Amino acid sequence: MSLDSKATKPHDRLAQALADDMAAVNTLIRERMSSEHAPRIPEVTAHLIEAGGKRLRPMLTLAAARVMGYGGPYHVHLAATVEFIHTATLLHDDVVDESGQRRGRPTANLLWDNKSSVLVGDYLFARSFQLMTETGKMRVLEILANASAVIAEGEVLQLTAAQNLATTEDIYLRVIRGKTAALFSAATEVGGVIAEAGAEEVKALYDYGDALGIAFQMVDDLLDYGGSAAETGKNVGDDFRERKLTMPVIKAIAQATEEEYAFWKRVIEKGDQREGDLDHAMELMRKYGTLEATRKDAIGWTDTARAALAKLPAHPLRDMLDDLADYVVARVR
Amino acid sequence: MSLDSKATKPHDRLAQALADDMAAVNTLIRERMSSEHAPRIPEVTAHLIEAGGKRLRPMLTLAAARVMGYGGPYHVHLAATVEFIHTATLLHDDVVDESGQRRGRPTANLLWDNKSSVLVGDYLFARSFQLMTETGKMRVLEILANASAVIAEGEVLQLTAAQNLATTEDIYLRVIRGKTAALFSAATEVGGVIAEAGAEEVKALYDYGDALGIAFQMVDDLLDYGGSAAETGKNVGDDFRERKLTMPVIKAIAQATEEEYAFWKRVIEKGDQREGDLDHAMELMRKYGTLEATRKDAIGWTDTARAALAKLPAHPLRDMLDDLADYVVARVR
Repeated sequence: MSLDSKATKPHDRLAQALADDMAAVNTLIRERMSSEHAPRIPEVTAHLIEAGGKRLRPMLTLAAARVMGYGGPYHVHLAATVEFIHTATLLHDDVVDESGQRRGRPTANLLWDNKSSVLVGDYLFARSFQLMTETGKMRVLEILANASAVIAEGEVLQLTAAQNLATTEDIYLRVIRGKTAALFSAATEVGGVIAEAGAEEVKALYDYGDALGIAFQMVDDLLDYGGSAAETGKNVGDDFRERKLTMPVIKAIAQATEEEYAFWKRVIEKGDQREGDLDHAMELMRKYGTLEATRKDAIGWTDTARAALAKLPAHPLRDMLDDLADYVVARVR
Repeated sequence: MSLDSKATKPHDRLAQALADDMAAVNTLIRERMSSEHAPRIPEVTAHLIEAGGKRLRPMLTLAAARVMGYGGPYHVHLAATVEFIHTATLLHDDVVDESGQRRGRPTANLLWDNKSSVLVGDYLFARSFQLMTETGKMRVLEILANASAVIAEGEVLQLTAAQNLATTEDIYLRVIRGKTAALFSAATEVGGVIAEAGAEEVKALYDYGDALGIAFQMVDDLLDYGGSAAETGKNVGDDFRERKLTMPVIKAIAQATEEEYAFWKRVIEKGDQREGDLDHAMELMRKYGTLEATRKDAIGWTDTARAALAKLPAHPLRDMLDDLADYVVARVR
């Protein structure tokens, strides 16, 4: 880990500024993922949690609490809670998506089995829930319970919306809120609540996390039609091949001629994909400028995130959160 | 539903005595299992929740609260919470066990898919969590968080302990606590806590639920080697064929000669089962009297349950809970 190249990324600057807090989070995570009686639990958890994820969500909680002047110990519990919820959803996602790879390594469901992924995910949910009760703050429990419901509902919605050409931009937003933004916004909001920030500041923290998560996921979906595999860990057109309706496609379908609609129906709804179909889909997206429009949407959400931050007190960590929002869309600027 | 035959069962007497409360629980369950955006959620949930389960766990919560003189509204929330947690674990269990039938109907994972079972289970966990935060009582959240962790840990333990001849009676107890007793004891304990019962009474309610759950599961495991399919919904020897280590087998293995141990190793660990093996297993269990010993253990747990109840104030519902404990082992008396 050379500092010179990495330190330029806002994510790494945050990690440096929060190094002590993050060390405490990691200690707590290792402590709570253990199980005296069922060693399978820490095995599966460690496989995922120590695979070098960016720990973005717990850092959001820590940063939010620190920006609001928190000096107590419970931001660490909440950061670990958020990481546990995230890890549990990844374990269940891999079962649902029948994935074979995550973060460049075989998934837990492949190394062990689906059963272990389901049950260890359930264990981590329960553990996260125990961690948050230790804060003694009912409001953070409400926030995280609501986020958990939005996450699960979004996943079910994605399951039923997939391959359905009637999926609107509104449904897409709901899906990506569940997929990404609900945990981002809960992460920042509970940081504010534990610091006993005022209602307006708590709202600003929520808005920042929500908009950041939406921008983050939109850019991810956009890069699927234009990024390099090195950058995204995915190949161009993966979503297309999996018949996932993301923003650039939804916008193209909304403007499709009759003939184009028949094309989308064949490749997405019926899943009858032939050679050249991905190229034709890209052509249609270029024809209606939907990649560019999605890019603008993502930048708009970043602006929303930064505007929310401006309502918070000045703090070096606030500036890093601002840079982070900028960085999310820098990949497609 | 003729009253004369059914009303003799303590479970049905409880249902009659708690009819108004249970109606409120059912209303709340239907209200909270809905999802404005993902109709798949109430579809899957209704399939299971309206399949005529006995609603034993929510009745335990209601009865505990009423015995302790509770007059507020939140025992209904907690009863619905407990039923949601139960339903979520059933959905995940059916994925883990690759079951095709539950309560005489096709399972949700068969009717829809494993994905829906995993995600709707997660949604119900999140919903249960929202419901309990509404009570505003941190202690009930701690209890239910702990129970959720014990349940998930027990399931993982069962996964890894299965087919392992080294499984001891202690491990078996831990597995059935996770499988059944943890939610029974949480159900009764939160009923006491919401009623602001004293520490000793809350402890007695916990002990009752714990012992009742253990007796209940032991009798279930015992009937697998002797009950009729009509009574248990299972065929004799299902656990044997699935190579599950339950109490009667664990006790027989503990006393096995070298030759007998080799038999158990072949049929349980290696899964090499031939014609006549179930008969031979039953013979070994009779030889060491392990079915009888398990029966005595179960009766012992029932006595523990009833002794705990005796510490609570006199109440018609307390008497019904006492009858319920008796009824659990009456099936094998």
